[in-house]
Amino acid sequence: MTAAPLLESYVAGHWWASADEGTPLPDAVTGETVARIGSRGLDVGAMVDHARTVGGPALRELTFHQRAALLKAVGLHLMGRKDEFSALSHRTGATDGDNLVDVDGGFGTLLSYASTGRRELPDDVLVLDGPPTPLGRGGTFLGQHVYTSLTGVAVQINAFNFPVWGMLEKLAPAFLAGMPTIVKPASQTAYLTEAVFRAIVETGLLPEGSVQLLAGSASGLLDHLDGQDLVGFTGSASTAALLRSHPAVTERAVRFNAEADSLNCSVLGPDAGPGTPEFDLFVDGVVTEMTVKAGQKCTAIRRAIVPREHADAVVEALRAKLSDVVVGAPGAEGVTMGALASRDQVAEVLRAVERLRTHASLVVGDPDRFDVVGADRGRGAFLPPMLLRCDDPAAPEPHDVEAFGPVSTVLTYDGLDDAVALARRGQGSLVASLVTHDPDVARRFVLGAGSAHGRIHVLDRDDAGESTGHGSPLPVLVHGGPGRAGGGEELGGVRGVLHHMQRTAVQGSPDVLTGVGNRWVTGATRNDDGVHPFRKSLAELRIGDSVTAGPREITLADIEHFAEFTGDTFYAHMDEAAAAANPLFGGRVAHGYLIVSWAAGLFVDPDPGPVLANYGVDNLRFLTPVKPGEQVTVTLTCKQITPRGGADHGEVRWDAVVVDSSGSPVATYDVLTMVAKEWPPASAS
Amino acid sequence: MTAAPLLESYVAGHWWASADEGTPLPDAVTGETVARIGSRGLDVGAMVDHARTVGGPALRELTFHQRAALLKAVGLHLMGRKDEFSALSHRTGATDGDNLVDVDGGFGTLLSYASTGRRELPDDVLVLDGPPTPLGRGGTFLGQHVYTSLTGVAVQINAFNFPVWGMLEKLAPAFLAGMPTIVKPASQTAYLTEAVFRAIVETGLLPEGSVQLLAGSASGLLDHLDGQDLVGFTGSASTAALLRSHPAVTERAVRFNAEADSLNCSVLGPDAGPGTPEFDLFVDGVVTEMTVKAGQKCTAIRRAIVPREHADAVVEALRAKLSDVVVGAPGAEGVTMGALASRDQVAEVLRAVERLRTHASLVVGDPDRFDVVGADRGRGAFLPPMLLRCDDPAAPEPHDVEAFGPVSTVLTYDGLDDAVALARRGQGSLVASLVTHDPDVARRFVLGAGSAHGRIHVLDRDDAGESTGHGSPLPVLVHGGPGRAGGGEELGGVRGVLHHMQRTAVQGSPDVLTGVGNRWVTGATRNDDGVHPFRKSLAELRIGDSVTAGPREITLADIEHFAEFTGDTFYAHMDEAAAAANPLFGGRVAHGYLIVSWAAGLFVDPDPGPVLANYGVDNLRFLTPVKPGEQVTVTLTCKQITPRGGADHGEVRWDAVVVDSSGSPVATYDVLTMVAKEWPPASAS
Repeated sequence: MTAAPLLESYVAGHWWASADEGTPLPDAVTGETVARIGSRGLDVGAMVDHARTVGGPALRELTFHQRAALLKAVGLHLMGRKDEFSALSHRTGATDGDNLVDVDGGFGTLLSYASTGRRELPDDVLVLDGPPTPLGRGGTFLGQHVYTSLTGVAVQINAFNFPVWGMLEKLAPAFLAGMPTIVKPASQTAYLTEAVFRAIVETGLLPEGSVQLLAGSASGLLDHLDGQDLVGFTGSASTAALLRSHPAVTERAVRFNAEADSLNCSVLGPDAGPGTPEFDLFVDGVVTEMTVKAGQKCTAIRRAIVPREHADAVVEALRAKLSDVVVGAPGAEGVTMGALASRDQVAEVLRAVERLRTHASLVVGDPDRFDVVGADRGRGAFLPPMLLRCDDPAAPEPHDVEAFGPVSTVLTYDGLDDAVALARRGQGSLVASLVTHDPDVARRFVLGAGSAHGRIHVLDRDDAGESTGHGSPLPVLVHGGPGRAGGGEELGGVRGVLHHMQRTAVQGSPDVLTGVGNRWVTGATRNDDGVHPFRKSLAELRIGDSVTAGPREITLADIEHFAEFTGDTFYAHMDEAAAAANPLFGGRVAHGYLIVSWAAGLFVDPDPGPVLANYGVDNLRFLTPVKPGEQVTVTLTCKQITPRGGADHGEVRWDAVVVDSSGSPVATYDVLTMVAKEWPPASAS
Repeated sequence: MTAAPLLESYVAGHWWASADEGTPLPDAVTGETVARIGSRGLDVGAMVDHARTVGGPALRELTFHQRAALLKAVGLHLMGRKDEFSALSHRTGATDGDNLVDVDGGFGTLLSYASTGRRELPDDVLVLDGPPTPLGRGGTFLGQHVYTSLTGVAVQINAFNFPVWGMLEKLAPAFLAGMPTIVKPASQTAYLTEAVFRAIVETGLLPEGSVQLLAGSASGLLDHLDGQDLVGFTGSASTAALLRSHPAVTERAVRFNAEADSLNCSVLGPDAGPGTPEFDLFVDGVVTEMTVKAGQKCTAIRRAIVPREHADAVVEALRAKLSDVVVGAPGAEGVTMGALASRDQVAEVLRAVERLRTHASLVVGDPDRFDVVGADRGRGAFLPPMLLRCDDPAAPEPHDVEAFGPVSTVLTYDGLDDAVALARRGQGSLVASLVTHDPDVARRFVLGAGSAHGRIHVLDRDDAGESTGHGSPLPVLVHGGPGRAGGGEELGGVRGVLHHMQRTAVQGSPDVLTGVGNRWVTGATRNDDGVHPFRKSLAELRIGDSVTAGPREITLADIEHFAEFTGDTFYAHMDEAAAAANPLFGGRVAHGYLIVSWAAGLFVDPDPGPVLANYGVDNLRFLTPVKPGEQVTVTLTCKQITPRGGADHGEVRWDAVVVDSSGSPVATYDVLTMVAKEWPPASAS
């Protein structure tokens, strides 16, 4: 990039340029202008309208599996271009190490959500939440919670520190949920967001209207939103409060999810003194969190909480580690910490450090004296890592003043309860880490500090090798925190998808709930058309297709034979007197495994056919003991059909119920099978 | 009640009376003063403080099962006194039929939550959300979502229409979640809330500080709240907006849950013309919702949406049914609809009806001419049921103006998509009902209108006999709705409990996650101390206790024998050529049921002992086919222990893993057993 182009917005399927020349955005390392940004004359209402009338309907036509496949294709495409984005990312001050979090991490989030969609969501457009709940004794009236897609737009308002991940971690769950997105990046680093967004649009893969970009001011955007829309905000607590006061939120119940910077802590466990592996892990963790993204992470460790008796040792160990940090231009030889996003940011951090020094001393790092490699310190947004120490437990600043840069404060505690209390003084944080090898310490910390944290990372010698670290939100785990952290929640696999959907309790008869949810509900109509359902391929099989087989009598000889063959000589099967004394049986009974084995013998269809395998059983419950001489009958009903995209088979879940001669259920369970999409197969295998 | 007592607040364990004489509260039927209400001089901050420092810690000492037992005891006690409350409830204008919803419904909600706590929550203080998630390939670093109790207070601000249910449906899930409550009833009917609250306190069952009552103004209360607190509000959309704009919510991220009145609809399906059972059910439903609580229900049907061709028939059928309604004093002979809560309320409803008449005609009911039985119409808050009809699809009032009384408007639609669009014009509702016998119509309606509704009630001939009706929120189903309905969610069984807790992603090693969650995680330490864990009672058994048994070889003869014995002669077991052609097996394999039967034979302990029964199996997956000649070994590990309160046994969940001779897992599953608390039993059974 040699000139300083005007960033464009992507509006209703077209790239759109501001009517003015925009505001220059400086390179964090050199101070040169990277790009300009502006949105004068932009019709934000038209963007909302386009999302609602074009993007949303197109997305909701697709099933979760189809949306997941698109996310995967886009993620793989972006992965192929990551070097290009990483180079541009250097201009934001980010090192290659930082890019692993922002760039690779962003693309990985798309792929993770693609996997979540394929593996944990149905090939349908609604999600069933839990099993059907009987609402009467007769079984004719039941409740089923379902999630359907909101019909509005997800507006994301992002922070400057993760221009790539910040966009994609919000976009992926929204897209999977069937909700179109308007991306509004923070100006400072919007050129990187715009570049990645442009690459997404260029794939041509995403339905028109499902993604739009607003490069510039979002002024007026919220005026257009209502209760079917969602605003996902990442940034300062003050901006979060401002947005949350908007009538869209207060009067029209727009869903508002905030993720605000917080005073996260890392706690050195009482068991983790110098000389233990945990002590070293703690020190490494604090240094990593101070230096990755030059400390500009909403999850960074601002408070290092350590046993009073180990404070000196911790400070010395941190001093030694921090002396190895090389500050300079991203990409320059040996550099381990890059620049902050801007010189304004540097000034803000220095003001915060001054406030922290009210009750703390600066023990490592001098902002007026430090080396910068490969760049002009006077032009770039550089700072050294700075460590403070506070031994005053009453000091308010360490728990309240956030220096959003390479800054952390060591605090001391006396006993685990005190550590919990100090952790909670952050008034709600995104994450705490606890470094301990004692599971009991971990449980006490989670019970005490859990409700003040969105994530708790317990680090020890056992998990350190695979740990992803204190500061990394993961797509499969929730991200967010109560109180000061904004009170929001993102990600968490399917959880993040459901935040973009409405949960509705549907009440109805078994037939109605079967029709609504595409899952057979006990009591609904069964179809026994004389063709064994195991002879039907996915192309022919329908929910409710059923077969009943039996009865077959179970004799005492059968029970004894099964016991001898399997080795399961439990007294309830073998010893009449002892079995009679058992409060549940009152006499000898058949093995549960005998019953399900015989049920399979009754319903199985022996010849090769579309049912390729029984790969599992769910929710097996033995309800009534089966005494010798009793007869059993099994009914198998097609419950749920999940075709696999890109495969020649799918999964079929069968409702199985075994009854005795009085019709009482003896065993109920789900049988899981793999079934061919066509039978005989279209081509020989 | 002969005088007009000053209602008291229950503050920090004491009954407290206002410094002034309070405001009189009139009887809805006679206009006499029932009680006075005031809170001058009340220290609301002290109430919050007491809840946080006394009530919360006491509640969090109890497990979910212990809290559930207290809810049950209180619920049963209140049920025993319900006649007394029902009599007082008459003074609010409620009939005995109305009391079934408010009084019995409220007590039933306590009992329902007692059951939810006992059956669906662990005997612990935290809730595990989902299974552990591997975060690395080596299995040493995993994530587990957990819920822990918020440490603040649940403030409930209630509406006048359900003085009993309104209090208890919020109190029960909060209490179960470990959160103390401050109840703030609406003044108009606070005397009934106070009476029931007094009865609760008199039981002496609830921990001190776990419930407090604020009879009077809540002014200043929100100033004391922060991100660990929750406000649950039911009432008008305008008050909801006001509360949501408070800095407690906008700046400190207090959880705010609103349930606001909405323009709920009932839709007569296209298939449900005159002469069908559904047509009659529709008419009955509309009349019920117009008259129960004199239409003062946030879930009442305000819009009756019917096929254009059936509109005349619907109006005539409603007219006939409504002519049978007898308005009068609750308890008086023949009365089927009581009074509104106050004469102010009557005036407000009449103003709303006037606005509705802009584009609709009043076709049934005349507020100036109707009979009142057993009361003086001039003193009580009476109205007749009033039906409007609007044939103008563009009219805004039916979708926006709520007459909070016995009022409904018939609207017409053309085709199901039009019905969906009309339903959505309410801009978010608590509930819609759809009267149809066609599951496909139900699915299309749910997909189209679901995201605008918290509940959809599908009524037909099949479920009508057990249906609880359009207007009844149920404790096991969520209650709330998007947009105009407030954007909140309450109840829904465990869902409502979790709204009072914080979800936290805990990351750690298998040992740490086992310790935190009291559930054994794959990879955690096993304890094989030589004592078979099936010989240990609950008093002796520990999570992680384990036994390994085997190996045992499975021969072709075994497979053929099992096939012959069970009848399961599936070709994969019996036919080498066909099995070899199966893409998953590549040759003959053992039955999955044979493997689990043999595993039981290996790990079972035959003699009578503390393990009383194997009552089920969960999550059984067959992972690797077992060929003839292969050997299997099983390891069983105690995973989770759930003692049953009031029983001499509990449930133990065992992790079972069967491996082949290479150590590859062949099958994994959970074995569910009932285990005696002591062995031998303390007394002979």
